[in-house]
Amino acid sequence: MDATALSGSVPDWLRQRAASTPDRLALVTADASLSFAALDRAADAMTGGLHAAGVARGQLVALLAANSAAYAVAVHALARLGAVLMPLNTRLAPAELAFQLQDAAARHLVADAAHFDVVTELGGELPSVRLHRLEELNGAASGQAAAPRRHASGFDLGEVQTVVYTSGTTGRPKGAQLTYGNHLWSALASALNLGLRDDDRWLACLPLFHVGGLAILLRGVICGTTVVLHETFDPDRVSRAIDEEGVSHVSVVANMLQRLLDGRGERPFPPTLRCVLLGGGPAPRPLLEAGAARSVPVAQTYGLTEAASQVATLSPADALRKLGSAGKPLFGTELRIVRDDGADCAPGEAGDILIRGPTVTPGYLNRPDETAAVLRDGWLLTGDVGHLDAEGYLYVLDRRDDLIVSGGENVYPAEVEAVLASHPAVLEAGVYALPDERWGRAPAAVVVLRADAATTGEELVAFCRERLAGFKVPRRIGFAAALPRNAAGKLLRRELAARHGP
Amino acid sequence: MDATALSGSVPDWLRQRAASTPDRLALVTADASLSFAALDRAADAMTGGLHAAGVARGQLVALLAANSAAYAVAVHALARLGAVLMPLNTRLAPAELAFQLQDAAARHLVADAAHFDVVTELGGELPSVRLHRLEELNGAASGQAAAPRRHASGFDLGEVQTVVYTSGTTGRPKGAQLTYGNHLWSALASALNLGLRDDDRWLACLPLFHVGGLAILLRGVICGTTVVLHETFDPDRVSRAIDEEGVSHVSVVANMLQRLLDGRGERPFPPTLRCVLLGGGPAPRPLLEAGAARSVPVAQTYGLTEAASQVATLSPADALRKLGSAGKPLFGTELRIVRDDGADCAPGEAGDILIRGPTVTPGYLNRPDETAAVLRDGWLLTGDVGHLDAEGYLYVLDRRDDLIVSGGENVYPAEVEAVLASHPAVLEAGVYALPDERWGRAPAAVVVLRADAATTGEELVAFCRERLAGFKVPRRIGFAAALPRNAAGKLLRRELAARHGP
Repeated sequence: MDATALSGSVPDWLRQRAASTPDRLALVTADASLSFAALDRAADAMTGGLHAAGVARGQLVALLAANSAAYAVAVHALARLGAVLMPLNTRLAPAELAFQLQDAAARHLVADAAHFDVVTELGGELPSVRLHRLEELNGAASGQAAAPRRHASGFDLGEVQTVVYTSGTTGRPKGAQLTYGNHLWSALASALNLGLRDDDRWLACLPLFHVGGLAILLRGVICGTTVVLHETFDPDRVSRAIDEEGVSHVSVVANMLQRLLDGRGERPFPPTLRCVLLGGGPAPRPLLEAGAARSVPVAQTYGLTEAASQVATLSPADALRKLGSAGKPLFGTELRIVRDDGADCAPGEAGDILIRGPTVTPGYLNRPDETAAVLRDGWLLTGDVGHLDAEGYLYVLDRRDDLIVSGGENVYPAEVEAVLASHPAVLEAGVYALPDERWGRAPAAVVVLRADAATTGEELVAFCRERLAGFKVPRRIGFAAALPRNAAGKLLRRELAARHGP
Repeated sequence: MDATALSGSVPDWLRQRAASTPDRLALVTADASLSFAALDRAADAMTGGLHAAGVARGQLVALLAANSAAYAVAVHALARLGAVLMPLNTRLAPAELAFQLQDAAARHLVADAAHFDVVTELGGELPSVRLHRLEELNGAASGQAAAPRRHASGFDLGEVQTVVYTSGTTGRPKGAQLTYGNHLWSALASALNLGLRDDDRWLACLPLFHVGGLAILLRGVICGTTVVLHETFDPDRVSRAIDEEGVSHVSVVANMLQRLLDGRGERPFPPTLRCVLLGGGPAPRPLLEAGAARSVPVAQTYGLTEAASQVATLSPADALRKLGSAGKPLFGTELRIVRDDGADCAPGEAGDILIRGPTVTPGYLNRPDETAAVLRDGWLLTGDVGHLDAEGYLYVLDRRDDLIVSGGENVYPAEVEAVLASHPAVLEAGVYALPDERWGRAPAAVVVLRADAATTGEELVAFCRERLAGFKVPRRIGFAAALPRNAAGKLLRRELAARHGP
């Protein structure tokens, strides 16, 4: 079979959406509500502003900004101009930002007021990057507007729309290129899996610079779904949006869901909440059980930057029957679990997760070798480990790169973390590798206790011994007030090791 | 912009659907209920049967059969085998069938028991066509089964899946080629417009040999929607399916809807009925008003064989505000209304309807000249006439080929028919052209009266004179018990002229 990358073109989807349902609400933020027609006009204005600022088709434009309406408008304006969006993680240190800008050879850097200081600091080091203030690109300031086009030109599905650097929990960051086709299929496949209704309202409280947040924006325009955008994750505000603003869908990672549940106490969720899309890595089983016990419509998902967000998602209908699973691959995506020799694993047997389909990246920017190492015949080696059950449901075990090989036995940190998190005193746990003279490496853990709970390392080790093979039991257990996570909520095991061991 | 035809491949969609939601109901007929897993197995068995019968990849296979589970299975089995399906209209005369089989150079002809007599009759005339009985292709009879494939091979979106002859109300029939990509985009765009829920149940009472019926089957598998299949249109049975079997969507043409409304009397439709997709040409306004008065969720659609079914559809939410409109083009489709010189019409100005997008046929089979005449730069000249209102809603006036030019003035039969049908005594009307010594051609009409109603030709002419310009008023009005229509319900004006005039 040929590569599954799709070519061809479709009309500018915001333009078409604005023509189809101009008055439907597109975007709600704390201080703005935009219909699709208004979003379309705002994108036209910013297209004019970007053009006046010297941004041209095909150029790479980095964006360093907090979630805002202007951020959303910029995403669509850059697409309309044919420029490539490179969203930057606002939590990165200046040196890390500089690395990405240089690595990608970005031509422009747009920042909002809150991040412009960082940008000016970087500016000196990167003379070839032109700096722009997001707030000044609305077109009005420059007196420019995009030339009206009688027939909207389209998006070439094979063309790169965004370059998103992967979170860097493993190795040095790489820019995953995602095409218009990748993003389009991600939106369509999500709708085919979760359904689509006129009254869908998807809350984005994840950063838009991560693919999970960005996908909400693009899905909104492609599927005609209202997006409710929060600048940051605030559990009380999320709760209010669910209770009072008709939010039907919300994307979260595990610790957000935990905080949301903790914050609500026993107060039930309204029936208007139809889907809590839970991503960012394997979720602790106790959290899933707590959600199920409270009838939260959790849809656990397995997503990747390299696949434009969701790869497989458990539909809420299967949530109880298949607790802990990430479900089945979405429409268009194929998934295999293979052994080291490339043979397919039997049901229940863990192996490397490979995926192929129309959402899979054509490769990393300027990294032919690293691309070739993970992309073969259209199949992407995800770096994750999992198994399929007899019915074909996916269970993701861990990032392969975090695998701890101890005395020839494999230790999957997520498995150990799940056991620790099932202890009544433990809120969450992180497991990392310690060097070990005898076995090469051995697992160690850091735990965060629940409020008012108490325990000891000895007690937890004994608890693990009862539940795990000896080689999986942490040799050392530390205690901390919080675990290091990236902005997407993904546990940073490398950081854990740096702080706590050896 | 480049052509919008899409290339690339996706996994076999029935295989993937069966993997995603194996237990969900796929197909309900009078004597069978198949889950997606069962439909998948049945398609595998028939793939084996077709293979054993000598059907090979790339060959054209004509299918002459009534709506049935076996018909649906054959559609998927032929796709799995990589053969091209050519559905035949069961109402055609043998000579018409022979023309299509020869024109397309079909290699195989599959017929069900009810149509096998016709097939044997044809067989003598077409020695190069191999004949098969649909009932004998289930794989069990031949002892064959499709070889199991570990990884389902995919569908190439640019490859032709079906050849559907256009209804032949105008000119000689032509085989519109529709690719996997055309059908896939039709299904996706329909879901984006009408929404998608787990409990969707789409009733197919249109013939599967028309694109509107076929599209229901393919949408079912792509979107995971249950299809309820009736062998023919029976208003009482449709009513029962709506009342008792949870049918949420049903596709009809105008006279089916009229009969459905007549048959139900004042009995309201249940809220589980969410969409009555009304196609088959411009609908009479009185019918739309009657539907609206009874809160029937009618979604008027403008569809074409050459565009894999729906091109534009009015969502039920807009049905009352835009009565008579076919709505906005579906996702991915662009639409223009142009004058004879190719310039775009102003809002409200009637002109030729052009469309472009991923559902548009790559062309007519073996007809490069006729293809080139209607397809330019990806834009399809539909042969239909319509206008857009100021908000961009499409109103389809008529088939351009049926246009009656009288003394240099254009008469659109549908417009005259709508006026006649608004007379209280008239159930429906058909308008055709009479030769006219002075004006070249002039309109004439045949009307069908409502039960117990009475009127005269003079009264109807007077009625029209009050509502239409003089040149649009029929010169002759005949009366009949029924109008000649094809199996899709489309009025056969040519037939009307042959029967009633000059």
